Amino acid sequence: MAKDKGPRRPRAETPKGFRDYFGAEVSERKAMLDTIAGVYHRYGFDPLETSAVETVEALGKFLPDVDRPNEGVFAWQDEDKDWLALRYDLTAPLARVAAQYRNDLPTPYRRFAMGPVWRNEKPGPGRFRQFYQCDADTVGSGSVAADAEICAMLADALEEVGIPRGDYVVRVNNRKVLNGVMEVAGILDPADPEKFAHERGIVMRAIDKKDRLGASGVRALLGEGRRDESGDFTTGAGLSDAQIAIVMGFVEANDLIDEDIRQRRASRVSGSTADLDEEIPSGPDDQDFPRELRQMILAASSAGRNKLVLSHLRELVGNSLVGLAGVDELSEIEKLLDSQNYNADRIRIDPDVVRGLGYYTGPVFEAELTFEITDEKGRPRQFGSVAGGGRYDDLVKRFTGQSVPATGVSIGVDRLLAALRAKGRAGADTRGPVIVTVMDRDRMADYQAMATELRRAGIRAEVYLGNPKNFGNQLKYADKRQSPVAVIQGTDEAQRGVVQLKDLFLGAKIAAEASHEEWKSQPAQTEVARADLVAGVRRLLGSA
Amino acid sequence: MAKDKGPRRPRAETPKGFRDYFGAEVSERKAMLDTIAGVYHRYGFDPLETSAVETVEALGKFLPDVDRPNEGVFAWQDEDKDWLALRYDLTAPLARVAAQYRNDLPTPYRRFAMGPVWRNEKPGPGRFRQFYQCDADTVGSGSVAADAEICAMLADALEEVGIPRGDYVVRVNNRKVLNGVMEVAGILDPADPEKFAHERGIVMRAIDKKDRLGASGVRALLGEGRRDESGDFTTGAGLSDAQIAIVMGFVEANDLIDEDIRQRRASRVSGSTADLDEEIPSGPDDQDFPRELRQMILAASSAGRNKLVLSHLRELVGNSLVGLAGVDELSEIEKLLDSQNYNADRIRIDPDVVRGLGYYTGPVFEAELTFEITDEKGRPRQFGSVAGGGRYDDLVKRFTGQSVPATGVSIGVDRLLAALRAKGRAGADTRGPVIVTVMDRDRMADYQAMATELRRAGIRAEVYLGNPKNFGNQLKYADKRQSPVAVIQGTDEAQRGVVQLKDLFLGAKIAAEASHEEWKSQPAQTEVARADLVAGVRRLLGSA
Repeated sequence: MAKDKGPRRPRAETPKGFRDYFGAEVSERKAMLDTIAGVYHRYGFDPLETSAVETVEALGKFLPDVDRPNEGVFAWQDEDKDWLALRYDLTAPLARVAAQYRNDLPTPYRRFAMGPVWRNEKPGPGRFRQFYQCDADTVGSGSVAADAEICAMLADALEEVGIPRGDYVVRVNNRKVLNGVMEVAGILDPADPEKFAHERGIVMRAIDKKDRLGASGVRALLGEGRRDESGDFTTGAGLSDAQIAIVMGFVEANDLIDEDIRQRRASRVSGSTADLDEEIPSGPDDQDFPRELRQMILAASSAGRNKLVLSHLRELVGNSLVGLAGVDELSEIEKLLDSQNYNADRIRIDPDVVRGLGYYTGPVFEAELTFEITDEKGRPRQFGSVAGGGRYDDLVKRFTGQSVPATGVSIGVDRLLAALRAKGRAGADTRGPVIVTVMDRDRMADYQAMATELRRAGIRAEVYLGNPKNFGNQLKYADKRQSPVAVIQGTDEAQRGVVQLKDLFLGAKIAAEASHEEWKSQPAQTEVARADLVAGVRRLLGSA
Repeated sequence: MAKDKGPRRPRAETPKGFRDYFGAEVSERKAMLDTIAGVYHRYGFDPLETSAVETVEALGKFLPDVDRPNEGVFAWQDEDKDWLALRYDLTAPLARVAAQYRNDLPTPYRRFAMGPVWRNEKPGPGRFRQFYQCDADTVGSGSVAADAEICAMLADALEEVGIPRGDYVVRVNNRKVLNGVMEVAGILDPADPEKFAHERGIVMRAIDKKDRLGASGVRALLGEGRRDESGDFTTGAGLSDAQIAIVMGFVEANDLIDEDIRQRRASRVSGSTADLDEEIPSGPDDQDFPRELRQMILAASSAGRNKLVLSHLRELVGNSLVGLAGVDELSEIEKLLDSQNYNADRIRIDPDVVRGLGYYTGPVFEAELTFEITDEKGRPRQFGSVAGGGRYDDLVKRFTGQSVPATGVSIGVDRLLAALRAKGRAGADTRGPVIVTVMDRDRMADYQAMATELRRAGIRAEVYLGNPKNFGNQLKYADKRQSPVAVIQGTDEAQRGVVQLKDLFLGAKIAAEASHEEWKSQPAQTEVARADLVAGVRRLLGSA
């Protein structure tokens, strides 16, 4: 027939790198975001929703004179030849808003935002081109109280969505400390900030790779460079041994402090005392397992460790003004949080936090989940980072020329949701509706009346709307929908003024476990008067 | 200086046709969508979230062989030269999902979806290129019970968000009735569905314009054509007078029925009786104001009117099988809804509902708000349509070749929200946070402790994080945030162990109304013990 010769049929496919979210996936994420929004709101942040589309110019990742924007974002030219793009994060639109409405917004402007962002990157396993972010930022406050508050809020948000205290730590560092170390190492000149920018870039990237490359890898990149397993060579920063030693004092600060603590503890065990003794966390005597000791300390860490870190950092930055300012800010943040009971078991001063983004200018923070999960290869590993942020004082300046201090946090929605699922805390109600089955299609109005009654009582319910001919299909449907109860009323039941209620969860259990005789006795099915429909269903739902 | 000679600054501008939503705008929309989602969920619908991006091929608005997709959507070519686009509605992605996962989804598949869609159209006042939709659809059920259920759900959703009964009506029609009328008029041949497709297109578009052009305008377009005020001529369908009379019997059905009701009422008033008397709504004797009578009937309409409409439509479609099927479906929908108490005051069978989209194949419906608002020129007008939908049995077929019956509804989120605002029912709490002011910047930890206490008591609160030097600025900030209470503690208060609480709503009222003496007595400011901070603030919030 002519109609079959039409154009070929389109493929029904999610575009590459994108995905669809069904049922509980949507409601679990929504429940989590609603909880986080509640925390942000309680802290005084106001919601802001910008459009998904921005001008490429405002996004600012690209030079205005290139013809086709770089990789990284989805972009297109509109009818006026302006380039538009999908936002790649929620911070760039905030900077645009802060500049555009600067005369109308309160100062400081505290806003939260949640929604999808898009990255035009090569898709991979678990890497999607659209994902959610959930941010809160304070624009227009240079006070470290703003940074401290965001760390406290992050801790509150994690606990409220279901990460118990002890299972997370907010790690805090300060870019200024690293700048101070670089000044001491002679690769930052406060009088000429552009000088050595190339070397500092290499140093920053090297430090950020410490987790993957280890201290020796970082050391190589600070010097001549590093050849990886594949044989590829990455050129290093070319620092001298003396310079490298200074930077490595920062890179290895955590290990040095752990060693310090271990020695103090050992000397305390052997009878001597040390100044900081009372502030050092106690733990098991496992000198042979520094890694485990480290984890014990991380979990049970106390204010003592934060103070040790701060004094170590103060030594490292020497006379660098920016470095000292950085240590002072960290010290102030630690003090503010500690006084609100956000103690070192939750907030840790940690020189290992660098964060890749070049735009951070002061305190940086990262929320890490410290419990272990099993990775795809069956090995236990720590869950890791689920949120991060910091102070960025120059983003709004791009538009206005005036520096506007700002600080904020972004929660990795998908990672945090995965963590909640791993902990069994994702917790939206995933039960399907009560299914009113159709035994007699002429009595549809009666079945609809049952569903209506149930709904008016607040019970999720629907009439089976497929072809009712095969009753087995109706029960299969109820099963697929994870329905807790099926309501059945044939002609006989209708005449007697009753309905059958089938407990589908119990029925499934019996089908899996019971003998044929037990199954035949249908303990999962009960008869109630039609007038008791709602009460009967409620009873079963209570037990389901 | 060299730095000032850098590239010109980007403009901080929302892209043309897009907009930003602040604070209450976001939370009011969210509250409304959450309520609607609750209704959809209670009716057994599951959430689905597809990505914003689809292949142009799957969206299906365009021929696959054109090089550059048409206007209407935002589209771009990815690195594999495939065309991608932002979704322009939530129905096209649903059709893709229903086809892609057809072996895994339950049948029927009942899903709801809410989120932004994008249209690459010329922006205008109140017309934006990104806006929200909020849909529920049942895919895989051919039963009119599915259509009836969606009408009932729409009524429930409107009432739950805050549109009172009596202020809305769900108008229902059926495309098959119109097809039946066209068959009777000789412009639809069931044996050759493609024949007269051009004429039918003109007829459909003409009927859809009835509101604007009036009956005479529609009549002209059914015949030779119509010249508008500007002198432009629109070619008509070229129907004969006899054909036009048949179609106009449908177009003017509502007016004919109103006239019928008026005459029956008149004859009843004068003492005679008529068969349908008891079913005809009673209203005031305003034979000279048929329009007002019409509105009275619309508001107080009863089952009698729906029955009159159905019998009139049955006459109009004569022996057309499709037409009779359409009337039977409408009759069944009316019966199902009436038995659930969704009576004619809420659900109205209405031949005027046509709905532009060509893809509807059966029942179509539209929710209209019947209260009056004042338009931008100060004239009263009915609020109008806020939701619509219908049955579309061919959308999934594009992908699979198999016809899949489907029906659904889409709520116009922005219009409904505007209606709620007009009625003062948008109702999210728009109060700002309690502001803890900073009198002594060295005591930031104390102020933070106050905010923390308030938050732990569930009270929205924040410390002022701007420059605290000018106290007036702090109060201006609190005012801009619509803060209900300011907390003040200077050195003196700290020493005495008290805080001052300033009722800012009362303060604003006094400032506006009170004499200088009254104002100086500061009735809006109270002192409480520091330990009673939470209780004191709670007291003020209760009265605010």
